[in-house]
Amino acid sequence: MTLNTIIVGASGYTGAELIALVHRHPQLHLAGLYVSAGSEDANRPVSALHGQLRGVVDRPLMPLSSPQDVAKQADVVFLATAHAVSHDLAPIFLAQGCVVLDLSGAYRVNQADFYPAHYGFAHQSPKWLEQAVYGLAEWQQEALSAAQLVAVPGCYPTASQLALKPVLDAGLLDKQMWPVINATSGVTGAGRKASLTNSFCEVSLHAYGVFSHRHQPEIAAHLDTPVIFTPHLGSYKRGILATITAKLAPGVSEAEVGQALSHAYQEAPLVRVLPAGEVAKLQAVQHTGFCDIGYQAAHGHLILTSAIDNLLKGAASQAVQCLNLKFGFAETTAIV
Amino acid sequence: MTLNTIIVGASGYTGAELIALVHRHPQLHLAGLYVSAGSEDANRPVSALHGQLRGVVDRPLMPLSSPQDVAKQADVVFLATAHAVSHDLAPIFLAQGCVVLDLSGAYRVNQADFYPAHYGFAHQSPKWLEQAVYGLAEWQQEALSAAQLVAVPGCYPTASQLALKPVLDAGLLDKQMWPVINATSGVTGAGRKASLTNSFCEVSLHAYGVFSHRHQPEIAAHLDTPVIFTPHLGSYKRGILATITAKLAPGVSEAEVGQALSHAYQEAPLVRVLPAGEVAKLQAVQHTGFCDIGYQAAHGHLILTSAIDNLLKGAASQAVQCLNLKFGFAETTAIV
Amino acid sequence: MTLNTIIVGASGYTGAELIALVHRHPQLHLAGLYVSAGSEDANRPVSALHGQLRGVVDRPLMPLSSPQDVAKQADVVFLATAHAVSHDLAPIFLAQGCVVLDLSGAYRVNQADFYPAHYGFAHQSPKWLEQAVYGLAEWQQEALSAAQLVAVPGCYPTASQLALKPVLDAGLLDKQMWPVINATSGVTGAGRKASLTNSFCEVSLHAYGVFSHRHQPEIAAHLDTPVIFTPHLGSYKRGILATITAKLAPGVSEAEVGQALSHAYQEAPLVRVLPAGEVAKLQAVQHTGFCDIGYQAAHGHLILTSAIDNLLKGAASQAVQCLNLKFGFAETTAIV
Amino acid sequence: MTLNTIIVGASGYTGAELIALVHRHPQLHLAGLYVSAGSEDANRPVSALHGQLRGVVDRPLMPLSSPQDVAKQADVVFLATAHAVSHDLAPIFLAQGCVVLDLSGAYRVNQADFYPAHYGFAHQSPKWLEQAVYGLAEWQQEALSAAQLVAVPGCYPTASQLALKPVLDAGLLDKQMWPVINATSGVTGAGRKASLTNSFCEVSLHAYGVFSHRHQPEIAAHLDTPVIFTPHLGSYKRGILATITAKLAPGVSEAEVGQALSHAYQEAPLVRVLPAGEVAKLQAVQHTGFCDIGYQAAHGHLILTSAIDNLLKGAASQAVQCLNLKFGFAETTAIV
Repeated sequence: MTLNTIIVGASGYTGAELIALVHRHPQLHLAGLYVSAGSEDANRPVSALHGQLRGVVDRPLMPLSSPQDVAKQADVVFLATAHAVSHDLAPIFLAQGCVVLDLSGAYRVNQADFYPAHYGFAHQSPKWLEQAVYGLAEWQQEALSAAQLVAVPGCYPTASQLALKPVLDAGLLDKQMWPVINATSGVTGAGRKASLTNSFCEVSLHAYGVFSHRHQPEIAAHLDTPVIFTPHLGSYKRGILATITAKLAPGVSEAEVGQALSHAYQEAPLVRVLPAGEVAKLQAVQHTGFCDIGYQAAHGHLILTSAIDNLLKGAASQAVQCLNLKFGFAETTAIV
Repeated sequence: MTLNTIIVGASGYTGAELIALVHRHPQLHLAGLYVSAGSEDANRPVSALHGQLRGVVDRPLMPLSSPQDVAKQADVVFLATAHAVSHDLAPIFLAQGCVVLDLSGAYRVNQADFYPAHYGFAHQSPKWLEQAVYGLAEWQQEALSAAQLVAVPGCYPTASQLALKPVLDAGLLDKQMWPVINATSGVTGAGRKASLTNSFCEVSLHAYGVFSHRHQPEIAAHLDTPVIFTPHLGSYKRGILATITAKLAPGVSEAEVGQALSHAYQEAPLVRVLPAGEVAKLQAVQHTGFCDIGYQAAHGHLILTSAIDNLLKGAASQAVQCLNLKFGFAETTAIV
Repeated sequence: MTLNTIIVGASGYTGAELIALVHRHPQLHLAGLYVSAGSEDANRPVSALHGQLRGVVDRPLMPLSSPQDVAKQADVVFLATAHAVSHDLAPIFLAQGCVVLDLSGAYRVNQADFYPAHYGFAHQSPKWLEQAVYGLAEWQQEALSAAQLVAVPGCYPTASQLALKPVLDAGLLDKQMWPVINATSGVTGAGRKASLTNSFCEVSLHAYGVFSHRHQPEIAAHLDTPVIFTPHLGSYKRGILATITAKLAPGVSEAEVGQALSHAYQEAPLVRVLPAGEVAKLQAVQHTGFCDIGYQAAHGHLILTSAIDNLLKGAASQAVQCLNLKFGFAETTAIV
Repeated sequence: MTLNTIIVGASGYTGAELIALVHRHPQLHLAGLYVSAGSEDANRPVSALHGQLRGVVDRPLMPLSSPQDVAKQADVVFLATAHAVSHDLAPIFLAQGCVVLDLSGAYRVNQADFYPAHYGFAHQSPKWLEQAVYGLAEWQQEALSAAQLVAVPGCYPTASQLALKPVLDAGLLDKQMWPVINATSGVTGAGRKASLTNSFCEVSLHAYGVFSHRHQPEIAAHLDTPVIFTPHLGSYKRGILATITAKLAPGVSEAEVGQALSHAYQEAPLVRVLPAGEVAKLQAVQHTGFCDIGYQAAHGHLILTSAIDNLLKGAASQAVQCLNLKFGFAETTAIV
């Protein structure tokens, strides 16, 4: 099987990773790279923006002037576009029968008021929002096989939920205390666009979006529990480390936490539950599609550490992983 | 007044900062730099180890073979030595009448069982342990003026306590939830000694000492409340950022937190309480003696961010600040 | 003596360093900070841009709407402005009798065609261009004492000339081979302005301005010899390292090079000629006003290594050093 | 065809890259990982040292106590060992008929006095030294197909020669001036071993091995021309950038240089000659097996910029590329 595949929003950092993954995938044919019609990058070869692609994928970034026409040539569409753009584009591609993997936040949470409250727009496609499958890959294998629209989770939510979900599902936490998620992301997480905030000389470790980042309600909605989520910007390019502190239900041991994690991921090739006492380290997951999870318990509390590459397991490779599950390819195809 | 001042453990990163501060201080005369008698750095000029000192302070690192003799020439002694070394040396210098500023953990907590439990040795100088003043400078002005032995706080405890103490003292927290302190330190915090852990290529963001770092009991003892403290190693040289999550007592507003902080530090020249809504950033405090504190509240919880330079406010400049307070010099002398 | 001092272009990285230096200088009174009239930073406290200044210098950046009026209040003016802006502003301040230290390239080279060829404008103030003293401080002590306008050298030219000049002056080089200057600068050298080039995720070591950087003709003009100069952008914030390869005149020994350097700088407190065999290292000069110079010779060739902090010895502290020499203050006042 | 493949010296950074490449290579079976018999890493799973391999290759590092026995099971041997170790081991494996790819310097230069002068030992296997093929892959396709022992070039020599060789071979340089090679390497180039020099806090840009680095004679020998080579340590993990300055023969144009480069590499899938005016950038080659080469000419001189990943094209992937050429596999197998 060969699927004609296009990437919209191919100029960004996630786009560049998607290109490499699709290029490497034996069942995917890279049929087109697109940017918004007015982009200054339109018609430039993508390798002029991302030098590592030179000689690998040199095709031009085409302006997406007529999505309907493009849709007709495509089996699979990756949307690495802004939330509002994905919101508008997805239904167009879906209407033409394409499978859509949306890496934005536009179809992640099917709750009234979620989009007005956290994204500043009312959702215009409630039907698709309802049908969208939230692509936290390890937890949605069945749903993905039937999905036409996959809402790939945010980077922070991926790292956070993969660590917390098995423990919550097993009822090991005392929910009196809201889990505290402190996470640090590399600067690629902010996208490829010049800004003073992301200027080399201005970047130094600090929190941002305190009590107000959109990934907090995304995590809370999918875990069905309130959390305190504080993201930080770190002075490095790639990777997310989440350190999660929670209170254990009375009598719960570290071993029980380990069992819950191991059980949840015993069949998951891209989640590595670390041996007891080890912590997740950024370097072990950078440039990979893995999520590493460590756990330690004492004094009635639990510390989980969870690390991913924000551009891969937090975006591009998880999208491909969802596609692999959807089409029945081996889960790690093109990823490991 | 000119005080003959010596620095023991002058070869490390904290030592180098102390040297620069003492050199710049108008009331201090740098009378000698010492390392342990067997050190391979003995008799080398300190500027061979720390190139930035070349042409500023080039004097040799002397082997400390006879502390008693050295003590006779000194008015002030900074101990930037290992815990066990400070434990042994301090009484020798104190017995000769020196004022001792100890930057190790050897005299920080006057509790039975603290040293056996957390440092692996039984304390042999209970009298000095009792007399030592814990040099969290902003909170000990009076005690410092009478102190002969100052136990300068650890770097993490400084960042953590300066943010938490005013809020705790004002009774603004719901102590049902233990405050969660996540902190990240630059690699200088690990000292100047070759190890694989601190090798350039091995450093990437990760937690360490989970539930077991010695600074946890130090913080808990001085704040008189349990805390969850998780330190991290960051891939940068200097600075600590602590992000602290706590639960507010019912009805407490963000403004009340701001007032508690502002009130506590209205006379403190080296603590900068940030405007509401701003977060502490590493870059603003690196190479300075300041502590920056930000605060934000929502959903009944509080996030404090606190940033210091680990080698300065977390060690060397706080030691000098304590000395300034002890001798009645302007608090920021040699620091700002 | 107290000199009313203003800084124009105070919002940038060099501006921030100048502010700290002027604040610390006992003979200077910081009388005003200015930005161009249309700047979006106008009326903001400078510490909102440069957090390290909070609590040290919080005064606002004033829009420079009437330079003439401002000039009347000022004894000394630092221009940390763009070339064309300095070109226009300097004569206005000079006409009012101010001493002007210009950190731009507008008054550095008194050669016909230099500005049209390398800066894209014809110079409108030939009289001032002629009177300007090129502030390579160690080589201009006498001229500086009489100067009203100081053209502070560029960062790369400072590192390059301080190393090469003594060797050239002593006739130790075979000029058949043009000296090859390879230099790497931290990203602060590119200024504080958002651009994709300086975005955190885009920065990685590479050459730029090959055969076309403006500092090449500046170096060649002042050394009176052609050079090959290739600048690089490094992935760090501060500092320049220049590695210079040249051919020795027949029979010249390494020792003769060392003597030429030592002799040139025996009275220079801010140039550190390293012991034979040692190389200049960035870390030793970052955050300092020093220039470190190493030299090694073999096979008839010479390698010079020269390191400075680009914002200090390459800009702000060299400007203050020139001012110190001009007014007869100790050369290192406010710098060491 | 499936070749049983072993890696000796598998604990280092190059070893880890080799493991990933062999694992990915369809014709290679990873049959064993070895370290020297006394290594403290012996019997540990390699993924405990290199976390990115966890779940990919977890097999243990075996102590190499009997090379003869190991050789009997192996078709292909990669030696990522120290020079002296490779010197001794290679003949043992070769005697058993293994194909040996040696990444050390032990078999790179077949010149009398080379090893005593630059490596401190007299070579004991002159026969193998003579038969060894220097694996600068793009230039040795024919020789490689017949080789049993491949001496994979050093990282600096690879970047330097790939850029210089076509230009020298085409007679475009004026050899009166020795080409000046300034190169900067990431810290992985120094190997995985704790040392103060490579400690995170000690690393900052500086030259080293001035006039004395072993890669200078290696380059000079294979290019058959003297060069000035000055390596630098950069504060980043991976990648080498070489900036090469040379004098053009009279009348040679930039276009002729471009033609020489393009012609040399028109069939080379892993060398990317950049468009005129572009410079090689580290980021475009990090984590890839490519060499990027830029060229610019003016004033009778030439600047070449050449970038590689030191662990890949400078070591592991070039070894695999040589193996691919040796066995007739597609040149980029497992690499792109």
